[in-house]
Amino acid sequence: MEELAPGFRFYPTEEELISFYLYNKLEGKRNDLNQAIDRVIPVLDIYDFNPWDLPQLSGELSRKDPEQWFFFIPRQKREAQGGRPNRLTTTGYWKSTGSPGYVYSSSNNLCIAIKRTMVFYMGRIPLGRKTEWKMNEYKVIQEEASSSTGPNPTARQEFTLCRVYKSSKCRRAFDRRPIGMQIGERSVQVSSDEARPSQNPQLMVDGSTFEVHAHENMILPFKWQWL
Amino acid sequence: MEELAPGFRFYPTEEELISFYLYNKLEGKRNDLNQAIDRVIPVLDIYDFNPWDLPQLSGELSRKDPEQWFFFIPRQKREAQGGRPNRLTTTGYWKSTGSPGYVYSSSNNLCIAIKRTMVFYMGRIPLGRKTEWKMNEYKVIQEEASSSTGPNPTARQEFTLCRVYKSSKCRRAFDRRPIGMQIGERSVQVSSDEARPSQNPQLMVDGSTFEVHAHENMILPFKWQWL
Repeated sequence: MEELAPGFRFYPTEEELISFYLYNKLEGKRNDLNQAIDRVIPVLDIYDFNPWDLPQLSGELSRKDPEQWFFFIPRQKREAQGGRPNRLTTTGYWKSTGSPGYVYSSSNNLCIAIKRTMVFYMGRIPLGRKTEWKMNEYKVIQEEASSSTGPNPTARQEFTLCRVYKSSKCRRAFDRRPIGMQIGERSVQVSSDEARPSQNPQLMVDGSTFEVHAHENMILPFKWQWL
Repeated sequence: MEELAPGFRFYPTEEELISFYLYNKLEGKRNDLNQAIDRVIPVLDIYDFNPWDLPQLSGELSRKDPEQWFFFIPRQKREAQGGRPNRLTTTGYWKSTGSPGYVYSSSNNLCIAIKRTMVFYMGRIPLGRKTEWKMNEYKVIQEEASSSTGPNPTARQEFTLCRVYKSSKCRRAFDRRPIGMQIGERSVQVSSDEARPSQNPQLMVDGSTFEVHAHENMILPFKWQWL
């Protein structure tokens, strides 16, 4: 598998998600760029799945992320006709929480997207039980109808972008503990060369092979290549 | 400049920092790997500088990070002789805060490093004024003296690894706002193609050129290359 150097991973800002991934997806003019984007953020009707099935369906270049998973959701027919989207799944439903927020472009401070946060409830409306599964849904701001240039304004609604995450597990990647380790728990043991697992993967760098002290959370989606 | 796809950046876990970067730096056997590591985490005696001068001295592949900056600190002579390191700078000093923590390997739950958090104070001990500049210092656990194999145990102390950050600015990269934008401030304006800045950089993908809706916070340290 192609690998990125340890510590490099897909950890986008909201602005990158909107300005690069969602804008280019909606423009859809470049087949090779689209294929590349699909490997990071695939198109998926997430309402066909339980939230806990989504991580394994996320993009091959970001699938191992233990914190968050990204998808493009195709617009539903009823939504295209002016209705509200159907957010029921087979086991529950997604429900909006709080007020919508906005994402701004840092280059000109324009509002570029609307952000809604949703929580997944198990069961049926209105008796569902709240879960720890959450989602941010981003919708590009529709261009003014008077805009005479650029692509068809309505095309911008063809996909929304969503970020699925678990509220209780959303700890900063930086200081997350090994799985199963409680915070505050200390098992101080002296590390030695012999104690290292021998099945560490090998990395190729400029034709030489190096052992990597790898672990489950390590994400290496790209080819290891220092340029 | 070589570029990484938007949203991909150096955002390491503590374990990656220790198991890959610090361990390999201390082993120091591979010149080409060392050169590669230097481009991400350079060696710097950070006590020769004010903390606010450090971001621009961080590794070329992670310099644009607005949140955190990494360095290898060479061991001081006095520390090698069993003394305490000198953490004075020309304008102030770094002072430990809280108890030391530990970093564990997720593959075998061994403790691989000691972590100390420090705060920068302006002025002279003990009258300094606390600042928002903080640092995590990681020191690899020294191997047992009885270890008969592997490198010289003391070699493992040649460098510590530090992560410098500002406590008030340490917001998750994911939802950080454009610089100068207050949280809750809303300047809703409809985005249009014409409003986009025309000086966006071009990205090369498989020989084709694409415009990127770039912004100051975008980190593109690698060549853009979908493999």
